[in-house]
Amino acid sequence: MLSPEHPLVDGRTSSAPYVRAVRGERPERTPVWFLTPTGTADPLSPEQVAETTLEHARRTGGDAVALGIDPFVPVMLAGVDVRFEAGRGALVDQPIRTGSDVLRLRPIDPAVLAPIADAVRLVVAELGSTPLVAVGSAPFALASHLVEGRSTTDPIRARAMMYRDPHAWASLLNWCADVTGALLRAQIEAGASVAQLHEPGLGALSRRDYQRRVAPHAKRAIDALRGLDAPRVHSGEGAGEVLDLLAGVGANAVGVDRRLPLDVASERLGGGVPVQGNLDPALLFAPVRTLRAHIDDVIDRGRDAPAHIVTLGGALPDEADPDVLTRIAEYVHGRA
Amino acid sequence: MLSPEHPLVDGRTSSAPYVRAVRGERPERTPVWFLTPTGTADPLSPEQVAETTLEHARRTGGDAVALGIDPFVPVMLAGVDVRFEAGRGALVDQPIRTGSDVLRLRPIDPAVLAPIADAVRLVVAELGSTPLVAVGSAPFALASHLVEGRSTTDPIRARAMMYRDPHAWASLLNWCADVTGALLRAQIEAGASVAQLHEPGLGALSRRDYQRRVAPHAKRAIDALRGLDAPRVHSGEGAGEVLDLLAGVGANAVGVDRRLPLDVASERLGGGVPVQGNLDPALLFAPVRTLRAHIDDVIDRGRDAPAHIVTLGGALPDEADPDVLTRIAEYVHGRA
Repeated sequence: MLSPEHPLVDGRTSSAPYVRAVRGERPERTPVWFLTPTGTADPLSPEQVAETTLEHARRTGGDAVALGIDPFVPVMLAGVDVRFEAGRGALVDQPIRTGSDVLRLRPIDPAVLAPIADAVRLVVAELGSTPLVAVGSAPFALASHLVEGRSTTDPIRARAMMYRDPHAWASLLNWCADVTGALLRAQIEAGASVAQLHEPGLGALSRRDYQRRVAPHAKRAIDALRGLDAPRVHSGEGAGEVLDLLAGVGANAVGVDRRLPLDVASERLGGGVPVQGNLDPALLFAPVRTLRAHIDDVIDRGRDAPAHIVTLGGALPDEADPDVLTRIAEYVHGRA
Repeated sequence: MLSPEHPLVDGRTSSAPYVRAVRGERPERTPVWFLTPTGTADPLSPEQVAETTLEHARRTGGDAVALGIDPFVPVMLAGVDVRFEAGRGALVDQPIRTGSDVLRLRPIDPAVLAPIADAVRLVVAELGSTPLVAVGSAPFALASHLVEGRSTTDPIRARAMMYRDPHAWASLLNWCADVTGALLRAQIEAGASVAQLHEPGLGALSRRDYQRRVAPHAKRAIDALRGLDAPRVHSGEGAGEVLDLLAGVGANAVGVDRRLPLDVASERLGGGVPVQGNLDPALLFAPVRTLRAHIDDVIDRGRDAPAHIVTLGGALPDEADPDVLTRIAEYVHGRA
């Protein structure tokens, strides 16, 4: 259960446009927000994470905010040897390749997530009515990264393990689901209002493989939130073929990437699922007129869903001018 | 027109199972083949290219073969400064970023492709009834590579150019289409029996962007073959959302990647288009029993199409044992 001081319980965020939209309502204005760029790879400095996160929140003026931490930090806290290198992200020098590598992984002790919970508390104390979103990487993303040793687009070694040793694969994905489940739970308990499970690599999987070998583990990560009455979002990139299955793991809303227009996405979702998305990050470099026409188009297509939250449908490019996010938020708020 | 000595005209390849399948017939046995790994980046040695290609053809025993050259070689021959680096592929140190960069590109002179035509002649003289497939990269792949300076999965700078400067984009894609068109034409004229236009990066594009900003240029590349009565294949990776449009650019058959089961692909293609594909490269690392079950499944699903050619639905992984391709070809031939 959420504590009486939780922002969803004491009323700070329960009527926030973002929270209402995830629950399927249409607030007065269309909510818009952007993930915080990963400021630091040092997870042991809650103050620094909180500062980066709050700075991003103030600058963009979005309707929600998430901690600016690398998605692989919880894996490191769980005991895996991980190096963070500028421009290359998280590197695992001893990747998980075999069943016995998987057996050496120890279950995460939720206590190791204390620095992240501390960062959540620091941020939530400052945010007032703006909800904090607990974002965690879905099991396939974490598992692929652990097998490949680095972030890749087609994690062929990981997929090979899926076929060659289905038991080791399932066991690895369970471990990853438990890490992410613990991360989401720790953040919600510490004051985050919404949980978002993000799967960036769905374009690498067929529908059948996703359904049989991945979705049950995504559900396990979401199930870690049982008993906590906080809404959930499941977002994916390259998810066109499996969009309906994303809602099926127990999410209130589904995040759609830039590849699929939101009206098409809504149709695939059966029309009753709130959507989040899906500005094209490439448009951040376009002239203002082109960008605004794109925002208008995204909002118009989003009307087919019961509710819509505007955000990027893909990663924020390193070269993007951060001020463009502020201007997008202003334009969305002014329009609605 | 094809010369009287062309293998399609003098009868050497006109009844080959591969050629018949691309044209929509079901030959006695299901054709199977594999792209030749890029043996050398030196396009000025037709003998070496021919040797690598013929060695691959003999070793795998496939029903068709393609030259083992890097897909970016024609761009280099067209006058762009390109470095080939082991493990990183083609690198363009002065990438094309602006409209004036595009204007500096000179139209390709088909004469620069002479070394490739020579390699085709050397290979075709040895192949007998096995058809040579002229493979060329589709305009979006070449353009993205030119803008990014290297091969990337989400060419965001290229897509940004598409939105920011649609005219420069269209002009760049035309240039790329002309390079690939000239490459395909030169190979067909020198004795290749089938042309295949390959687009590896379709997962990066929405359907609308593909239709408006890319497909017309793919059609331009195919149109360069006018007057040559050789069948055409258009293959794509991540093409699930635009599969029907691939056939629309003027292809007899469509290549499908591993992500989409062939029965689903056939349905999206309207049921009347021969398909090529789509073994999962990750299965090359699986136990024989698992791999054979996968081949059976791919062949069974391929029966929904008028004809089916078996090949990998994705790039051959560097670590793959080349003998596994031989065993796949034997199994497919033995089964059918």
